[in-house]
Amino acid sequence: MKLNRMIQFARGEKPVDLLLTNARIINVFSGEIHSGNIAVSDGFVVGFGSYTARKVMDIGGRFVSPGFIDAHVHIESAMTCITEFVRAVLPRGTTTVVADPHEIANVLGTEGIEYILQSGRHQPMNIYFSLPSCVPATVMETSGATLLASDLAPYMSRKQVVGLGEMMNYPGVIFGDSEVLAKILQAKMHRKPVDGHAPALSGRDLCAYAAAGVSSDHECTTLEEADEKLRIGMHIMIREGTAAKNLRALLPLVNERTFHRMMWCTDDRHPNDLLDDGHIDSIVREAIRSGLNPVMAIQMATLNPAEFFGLSTLGAIAPGRAADLVVFSDLSEVKIEQVFQRGLLVAQDQTILPEINKPAAVAIRPCMNVDAQELDFSVPADSKRIRVMNLIPGQIVTGQSIMDAAISNHRVIPDTSRDILKIAVVDRHTGSGRIGKAFVRGFGLRRGAIASSVAHDSHNIIVVGVNDADMKAAVDTVIRLKGGMVAVCDNQVHARLALPIAGLMSPDTVETVRMQLDRLISVARDFGTTLRDPFMSLSFLALPVIPELKITDRGLVDVSKFEIVSLFAP
Amino acid sequence: MKLNRMIQFARGEKPVDLLLTNARIINVFSGEIHSGNIAVSDGFVVGFGSYTARKVMDIGGRFVSPGFIDAHVHIESAMTCITEFVRAVLPRGTTTVVADPHEIANVLGTEGIEYILQSGRHQPMNIYFSLPSCVPATVMETSGATLLASDLAPYMSRKQVVGLGEMMNYPGVIFGDSEVLAKILQAKMHRKPVDGHAPALSGRDLCAYAAAGVSSDHECTTLEEADEKLRIGMHIMIREGTAAKNLRALLPLVNERTFHRMMWCTDDRHPNDLLDDGHIDSIVREAIRSGLNPVMAIQMATLNPAEFFGLSTLGAIAPGRAADLVVFSDLSEVKIEQVFQRGLLVAQDQTILPEINKPAAVAIRPCMNVDAQELDFSVPADSKRIRVMNLIPGQIVTGQSIMDAAISNHRVIPDTSRDILKIAVVDRHTGSGRIGKAFVRGFGLRRGAIASSVAHDSHNIIVVGVNDADMKAAVDTVIRLKGGMVAVCDNQVHARLALPIAGLMSPDTVETVRMQLDRLISVARDFGTTLRDPFMSLSFLALPVIPELKITDRGLVDVSKFEIVSLFAP
Repeated sequence: MKLNRMIQFARGEKPVDLLLTNARIINVFSGEIHSGNIAVSDGFVVGFGSYTARKVMDIGGRFVSPGFIDAHVHIESAMTCITEFVRAVLPRGTTTVVADPHEIANVLGTEGIEYILQSGRHQPMNIYFSLPSCVPATVMETSGATLLASDLAPYMSRKQVVGLGEMMNYPGVIFGDSEVLAKILQAKMHRKPVDGHAPALSGRDLCAYAAAGVSSDHECTTLEEADEKLRIGMHIMIREGTAAKNLRALLPLVNERTFHRMMWCTDDRHPNDLLDDGHIDSIVREAIRSGLNPVMAIQMATLNPAEFFGLSTLGAIAPGRAADLVVFSDLSEVKIEQVFQRGLLVAQDQTILPEINKPAAVAIRPCMNVDAQELDFSVPADSKRIRVMNLIPGQIVTGQSIMDAAISNHRVIPDTSRDILKIAVVDRHTGSGRIGKAFVRGFGLRRGAIASSVAHDSHNIIVVGVNDADMKAAVDTVIRLKGGMVAVCDNQVHARLALPIAGLMSPDTVETVRMQLDRLISVARDFGTTLRDPFMSLSFLALPVIPELKITDRGLVDVSKFEIVSLFAP
Repeated sequence: MKLNRMIQFARGEKPVDLLLTNARIINVFSGEIHSGNIAVSDGFVVGFGSYTARKVMDIGGRFVSPGFIDAHVHIESAMTCITEFVRAVLPRGTTTVVADPHEIANVLGTEGIEYILQSGRHQPMNIYFSLPSCVPATVMETSGATLLASDLAPYMSRKQVVGLGEMMNYPGVIFGDSEVLAKILQAKMHRKPVDGHAPALSGRDLCAYAAAGVSSDHECTTLEEADEKLRIGMHIMIREGTAAKNLRALLPLVNERTFHRMMWCTDDRHPNDLLDDGHIDSIVREAIRSGLNPVMAIQMATLNPAEFFGLSTLGAIAPGRAADLVVFSDLSEVKIEQVFQRGLLVAQDQTILPEINKPAAVAIRPCMNVDAQELDFSVPADSKRIRVMNLIPGQIVTGQSIMDAAISNHRVIPDTSRDILKIAVVDRHTGSGRIGKAFVRGFGLRRGAIASSVAHDSHNIIVVGVNDADMKAAVDTVIRLKGGMVAVCDNQVHARLALPIAGLMSPDTVETVRMQLDRLISVARDFGTTLRDPFMSLSFLALPVIPELKITDRGLVDVSKFEIVSLFAP
C-alpha cells in the first residue's frame, strides 16, 4: 500500500475496508489483552479505535491474535504441494511460514528452489524461505544436486528469502570449510540470519559455531543444551514435529526473561498430524496447557519469529502491519475459529473458504533417472559374516551387529526367521545404475517389500523386502509412479502413494495423501511389521549423518567413522 | 576479523589475546548473572570457559556488563568535539552512541554531516548516526541548509548510518508531505528504522504516524502517552537529558513483559551533567535505585538498542560480539571502574587512559556569514502597543502579552524597570543582514547583553540586552569568535565561550568548556538575571515549533498560528 494512502486510512480521512469491533486484542508489545476495535484497509491494520468502515464485523468479545508463524518447516514433509499444505495449516491459524526447501533441493537443486519459490507465490499465506545450506548432506551418497555458495548467491537477495537454512554441516563450520563460510558470509552480507542445526554441540565448539554467525538452533533436546545455546546468544526454536518433539523438555527454560529469544517451529509434520493435531496452534495450545502464559506462548508464535527474520510488517496487530489475524473464543483451548489473511476472511471453523483462490500448479520435471531393467538386487556371498543394521523402534539412530549370513546359491539372502531383511538404495538421480545393498533387522516383514523415494536427505529409492523379486517389483512401481511409496507382495501392488513432485510430494489433497499413507502402513502391518510407521523408519535409514550404520547408493556407511564400509565383516 | 580466524580462536586452536577470569557476567539473553571467564581476540568475544591466553586479567568477582549504548544523542549539546565527548562518556561505560547531527546539519547541511561522520572515525567508541530528518525545522527562519530526501540519499546506505533521525515534522508525516514520506521510504528501503519525535501525539494521528513507519519515540512525558505508543508497536526511548527528564514518569511502564521494547537515551546533555552525573551509567543507576531489576536496566542500555538499530555484533557478551565491556563492583551503584573497547582497556577509574589515541581534528569551514558593521538593532516606533514574549523559567514554551512600548526618540527601547529587554536574532548563514527584533520579559538583566550562536534549531545569533550598544558589542564578539556565547557590558566582554565548530562546539576540553559556561552564567547573574541557565533559556527562544511566541531572523512567530506576526499589536 502506498504510504500516504495508509496514512489517510489511519487518520480516518476515508472509510476503512473493515472494522473488527468488540475484539479482545492480544497485544504482543505490551503483553496485555485489551478490548478494542481493529481497523483494516488494503490488507493492513491501520488503527485501533473508532473508524468509519465499509464493513463492520462484531467479534463478540472473542480473542484476536496476530497470525501464527512457523519459524522453520520443510513443507516437503507434508508430502503435498504448497497449495495443499496451505489448505491444511491456514485454517489452523498459520499465516506465515519460513520454509527450508532442503529436501527438494537435494533432488532438483536450484530447479527445486525455483519450483518452491514459484509455488509459494499468490498463496493466501506468507511463504518465506531459508535457503538450503547443506546440499548434499554428505559426499557418501548420490544426490540430485550440489549447491555451492555461488549457486545460492542469486537467491539470497530475493525478498522471499529471509535467511540461510539450517547449517547441519557444523563440522564444516567449526573446521572453517571455505564453501560453508562463503554461504554464511553471503547471508551476513544481506543481513539475513543463519539458522543452526547442531544437536548436542557444546563448549568451545558451540562458541565457534555461534561466533561464525549461526544465530538460531532448533535441535535442542535437553534443558541444559538449550540453556547453553541461549546464553551464548542463539535464538531457540522449540520444535514439535511428527518425529521430534521437544516442547516438554524445553518448556522449563521459557520464562519472562528468556521468552523473547524463543519461538516455535514444526520442522517436519506429516499429513496425519497436520489433520489431526494442527500446526503451530497445537504447539501454542500444548504450551498453554502446560502452564505457559498465553500471551507469551502467542508472542513466541508471532512477534519473535517476525523480528528474528526481519519481517517488520508481520507478527503483531498494529498500524502498518499486515492484517493477518486469528480469532478464537477460549484462551486455554486456542481452537481457531476464523483466520484473516491481509484483511480477508480466508478460513472459518478450521476450513479454508471455498472462494479462496488456489494458485495454478507449477510445472516440474520428472526426477526419476534410473533404468529399472538393469537393476540387480542379488548379493554375491564373498564371506560368511555380514554387518547388519539394527533398526531401533521410535528412533532414527541405528545399531549394528555382525551376524552369520544366510547363503543360498552363492548369494546372501534374507532370513525372515531371524528378521534379517535385504535393504537397498538405488540411485535415482544420475542414471548410474548404482545400488547399495545390505541387511537390516527390526522391520519384521514376513512377506513382500516396501519401497519409497523419500529417503533423507538425497531421496534415492530405498527398499526393504524378503526377496529380490518383490524388492524389484516395488522399486519398479516407484519408478513407474515417478516417485512414491509402495507395498508389494508376490508381484502385486497392495498399496501405493504417488509422489510425482520430485518423488517427495503429491499433487493430491492432503486428505487423500493421508488416506493412502494410512493404507500403506496397514498393508505393511499385514506383511508382518509391527513398526508404528515403517515408511518413516525406512526414510531415515539412508541418512548418513545419523549414527551408527546407514545405507546409501554407495553402500554401507559407518557414521562414526564417516566412511563407506564393506557389507562383509573382516 | 576473518570468520575462520574467529572460529579458530573460539575453538581454542590458538591462544586468545585476553582472558578475563572470575567475572560475574551480566547475560542479557538469559537475564541471569553467571560466573565465568570471557575470552577475547582481535577485539571480539570468542567464548566462555577455559582458554589459553596471551594475557589473563582477574576480574576478582566483579560484574562485567556489555558496554552501554545511547540510543539517541545530539553530541552538539555537549558543546565539544566528538573526541572530547568520547573522553567524557567512554569512562562512564558508554561504548556506543547513535548520534543525530541535527544541530550541525542545520548550520552546515551535508558538510556538517560529513564533518560529524569523519570525526566519528577512529574513535575508541562506536559512533553510529541517524540522519537528520528535519532540516530546517520550519520555513519561518533562515537556516544554514535545507536537506531534501535527495540530499540524504547518498548517506542512507552508509554503514555508519543506522536510521533516519527523529521525525519532528509529524504534521508533515500525517498530512502526507511528499518530501517527508520520501525520506521515510528511503530508510525503509535500506531496512533502517525511523526514529520518532511526536510529543503528545495520540489517537488516530498517532496511528497514522506509526503506520507510516516511524518506530520509536523519545518524547513521551506521561505514562499514558508511553503506554499508547508502546501498544501500537513503537519502541520507547526513555530520555534523561539536561533539560528533559522522563525516567521517573515512565519507569512504572517498564516491566518484564514490556522492557524488551524500551531503551535509554540522553538526547541532550550539557557538559556539567556529563562531568557531574555521567551518561547512560547515570540512567541505569537511577533506574536501579528506583527499583528496576539491574539486568533489565542494563539490557535497556545494551541489547535492546543494538537490536533496534540492527547492530548485531553489539549489545551483549557473546561469541562473535565486540568485546566492549564495562566492569563494576556494586550492582546498586554501577560505578564504572574499567571500560574495554574492542578488547582494549580504554578507561580506568572514570578516566580515559592517556595512551588511548585521539583522532586528529577534522577541518571545518567557518560558519559566520554576517557583516557586523551593517547591523542596526534600533526599532522604529510604528505604534505604541507591542507584543512581548514572556519567558517561563524552567520551560521552553513561552507566553505572550500586549504591553505599552517604552519610546525614546521615535524608537522602541528596553525598559529594565518593567524587565522588558530587547531581543534579536541575526541571520548568520546567508549574509542577508536580516535581523528579527522584539522584546522579552523574564530575563531580569539590569545591565549588559548576552548573546549566543546556539539557538535551536537554525542556530542564528540570538542576543538579549538592555541597550543596542551592548547588544551590538555582544553580537560583534560572537562573530569575531566565529561562534560562541558571550556576556558583554559597557563594551567590555566579561565572559566568553568560543564555539568555532559550526558556532556550536568548542575544540577545547570538556572541562574548559564547562568552566567557561559556568563563568558565563555567573556573569549573567551579576548582570541581574535569576535564571538557572540564561543561555539555555535564550537558545530555545528561537525555536518556532514550540509555542507560543518565538523569534527568528524573520521576526516574531506566533507558533499557534504558525505565522510571522508584527511586533506591534493591532
